[in-house]
Amino acid sequence: MSYKRELEHVVLAPENLEKYASKVTSEIKPFFKPKSIAVVGASKDVNSPGWVTFKVLLENHRKGVLKAKVYGVNIKGGELFSQKLYKSILEIPDEIDHAVILVPAKYVPSVLDDCGKKGAKVASIISAGFSEIGNVELEKEVLDKARENGIRVIGPNGLGVFDPWNGVDTMFLPTTKNVDGKDLLACPRPKKGYIMFMSQSGALGVSVLDYMYGEGIGISKFISYGNKIDVDEIDMLFWALKDETVRAVMIYIEGIKSLGRALVNVAREFSKHKPMVILKGGKTKAGARAVASHTASLAGDIKVYEAAVDKMGAIWADDLIEFLDATKALALQPPAAGNNVAIVTDGGGAGILATDKAEKIGINLPPPSDKLLQKLKQAQENGLIPSVATFANPYDISGSASDESYAVALESVLEDDGIDAALVIALHHPPLLSPAFVDKIASVARKYKKPVVAVDIGGTDMANWVRDRFDSMGIPAFSTPERGVVALNALIRYGRFLKREGVLDEYLDKWRPIV
Amino acid sequence: MSYKRELEHVVLAPENLEKYASKVTSEIKPFFKPKSIAVVGASKDVNSPGWVTFKVLLENHRKGVLKAKVYGVNIKGGELFSQKLYKSILEIPDEIDHAVILVPAKYVPSVLDDCGKKGAKVASIISAGFSEIGNVELEKEVLDKARENGIRVIGPNGLGVFDPWNGVDTMFLPTTKNVDGKDLLACPRPKKGYIMFMSQSGALGVSVLDYMYGEGIGISKFISYGNKIDVDEIDMLFWALKDETVRAVMIYIEGIKSLGRALVNVAREFSKHKPMVILKGGKTKAGARAVASHTASLAGDIKVYEAAVDKMGAIWADDLIEFLDATKALALQPPAAGNNVAIVTDGGGAGILATDKAEKIGINLPPPSDKLLQKLKQAQENGLIPSVATFANPYDISGSASDESYAVALESVLEDDGIDAALVIALHHPPLLSPAFVDKIASVARKYKKPVVAVDIGGTDMANWVRDRFDSMGIPAFSTPERGVVALNALIRYGRFLKREGVLDEYLDKWRPIV
Repeated sequence: MSYKRELEHVVLAPENLEKYASKVTSEIKPFFKPKSIAVVGASKDVNSPGWVTFKVLLENHRKGVLKAKVYGVNIKGGELFSQKLYKSILEIPDEIDHAVILVPAKYVPSVLDDCGKKGAKVASIISAGFSEIGNVELEKEVLDKARENGIRVIGPNGLGVFDPWNGVDTMFLPTTKNVDGKDLLACPRPKKGYIMFMSQSGALGVSVLDYMYGEGIGISKFISYGNKIDVDEIDMLFWALKDETVRAVMIYIEGIKSLGRALVNVAREFSKHKPMVILKGGKTKAGARAVASHTASLAGDIKVYEAAVDKMGAIWADDLIEFLDATKALALQPPAAGNNVAIVTDGGGAGILATDKAEKIGINLPPPSDKLLQKLKQAQENGLIPSVATFANPYDISGSASDESYAVALESVLEDDGIDAALVIALHHPPLLSPAFVDKIASVARKYKKPVVAVDIGGTDMANWVRDRFDSMGIPAFSTPERGVVALNALIRYGRFLKREGVLDEYLDKWRPIV
Repeated sequence: MSYKRELEHVVLAPENLEKYASKVTSEIKPFFKPKSIAVVGASKDVNSPGWVTFKVLLENHRKGVLKAKVYGVNIKGGELFSQKLYKSILEIPDEIDHAVILVPAKYVPSVLDDCGKKGAKVASIISAGFSEIGNVELEKEVLDKARENGIRVIGPNGLGVFDPWNGVDTMFLPTTKNVDGKDLLACPRPKKGYIMFMSQSGALGVSVLDYMYGEGIGISKFISYGNKIDVDEIDMLFWALKDETVRAVMIYIEGIKSLGRALVNVAREFSKHKPMVILKGGKTKAGARAVASHTASLAGDIKVYEAAVDKMGAIWADDLIEFLDATKALALQPPAAGNNVAIVTDGGGAGILATDKAEKIGINLPPPSDKLLQKLKQAQENGLIPSVATFANPYDISGSASDESYAVALESVLEDDGIDAALVIALHHPPLLSPAFVDKIASVARKYKKPVVAVDIGGTDMANWVRDRFDSMGIPAFSTPERGVVALNALIRYGRFLKREGVLDEYLDKWRPIV
């Protein structure tokens, strides 16, 4: 772990990024791609963490998602889910590279010794009862034991790992709750996707997963590192760099320690390759006081943070919605080469609300060039765009718009050299629109390396279908005009960073759509 | 309609509010409680406006929601949905008080003459093709005919009326759209509720209804007045004052004409009785340009608006989400008597995000009084609140919280004289929480006339269930901490207005919870 101290003192040279990433990746690989897992603290107590975790992992193995074999360890022995429970990890007649540890805090050091003897490479320590309640010495002992035994640790006092691509899942909360005799899904597992999410707060982490589940946003990996004695954001950025299922990273942090010089150094190089979004709890004085009482860490001066985040090329989210929306946009669309946006809409009011928000946050909405105007008027004469449409940016193709109107209008604006990105407000209600308009829009967008973000307002089946379809076609879709604008702005901000670092063209050359 | 000119020149005295309201209410009553409706322009063309409207109204009558009899009028006669189509409204062998008019624009004046002869009192003119496309003369003729015949008009060029309490529904958009062989609900009808919504933009109106449907927000009435030649916000405020199903009003406006002196006068008196929220399209220069090209109206100087809205006691919403969230909060909860808020949470991170937002928008989070602290520590000693809980506001009762912990913590803060309102962050994931915690929280809240707003983050069935249950118990619930804070702030702002006008105590005396 000495490389982190190294990284505090030297600026990471671009050519060294790969070197560090390879080293770290090989060390922490068994967290995500283990050969075999031992659940130390598997328990017969229904709905207890040791019961939930053992069950979930076994099921994932049976389903074939988790390739690793799963073994249960309980000091009392016995059997659970038709599996033998071993009294010690040492008794397991197989190699173990990943130990999930759920035993009471005081036993963790000796379990780590056993893990070492068994040759385990990594441990997800879920157990609580360390520095968060004042047991600093015990936590130090755990770290020492891990180092002695050459074991990389996620935790303690966190939720561990959730990785739907590989089936590793240590989230121990009850999966369902019973309401009026019916089991409702209560602890969600979002679908496979392209976002890596790290959270300093386990509870907030689960809540965000729940939100992602509801919005249909997929995830690559979720890491809840709790007291974070070892594996941290730096390690995970190295991992993310080389993991093709990661197209964007989102990080929730509270304490000042989390944004040290080493992370800033690494993040700045990382951001030249993949985007990241940071949400910081404790941005205000009152918020900082709340942080102190929550994680006993210093929230720090917000100005220092902002400077650090800017240097890192990270997108700084203002609130939970922006945190998620910006990340979704960055995972699906390329960065914008500039600040000039065209809004195409079939609803005047929605276009106006988007315009207000765009102006408020500094996005430029240029009027159409002569050439563009001519092209649109031509389309209007040909009957492809309704005669009542107006072209002042917003390009309001009106409630008489057809699927074809969208395709023509979007193609026209994206072709224009003066336009860097488009917001497509695609309210589904107009009678001439068929569901196929989504795919039409997506296939036009795919032709240009300019970001396109979509909006459909509403919560009917049709509105949900439209947004889901956009998402699955690689166009991030949002439920209000203002959310769409803020998400698009993340792509503009990221493009600005890449430009500043002189790597935008190279980045865009390599960029590929998700479908 | 001369009363509107009157109201421009005199400040409305409180004692005259009732007088005007009675007069207007009796005039426009047949829009919402008609004895019989004629659909002029009922059409056999499947999915055409005349087909959809006739069908929807007939169905509502058959279901018993719409008491009025429904008659179809089509110049060609014939039959539709097993009903005779009359060639003229004059042929209908029954009295008609409400005409829904869907014929081409040029026939509208003569239809109004027929309506007058038939004794109709009100007309929802859905037909388009008037001033919005330059036919100013035709629109003037329509208005003249309406006045000559003593008919009050909603429209033209709007969606008309949707009233789920009384079954009046002129929303002519196709109800479903076909996706891969399945009919998906595309034009939503939100459930019965307590919000009156007026929209200058029909498309935005439908989108907002779609959003309300998705969020489970009920509606009292939706009015889409289109070109608004007669019935406007002033009339509807008079109606809202006397309609017990209206507990809050939301208005979307674009043009400057909509915020005239008469409306400001009326709204200021209205707001002493019921809350209203305004979203203005065209708040920025770019937005104002977009308004000009959308509704050909002047967006006006935002400073003028803000001053007017402040005088009106209306809550000025910043974006679409705040528009809806503030209105929901105001419909369900009493205004706050002050700016001092307590945050009770079972998730530290979520509490911090709420704190950041609260500080940012000027909400005060006072530290606990000695008395309050003592009470909470007592509850902790009694095992009702977990030992790891911290009481610094946020009151973080932690992931070990039980149903009882919430009840005790909320009761303690609401009892405290120094606290005016509470935000309850009720993340459903902790293992000890049962679904009953929602009702426990609601029954504590009901004992105090201090506003309580809830938050549960997520989109699983359980998260949706928790928020729906809170809503139905009269506690407005939102899906992110920041949204909860902004909604609560609307209750603080409204309380401030009532205090300034010297009517807060009287208002709170009369205020009753919804359940």
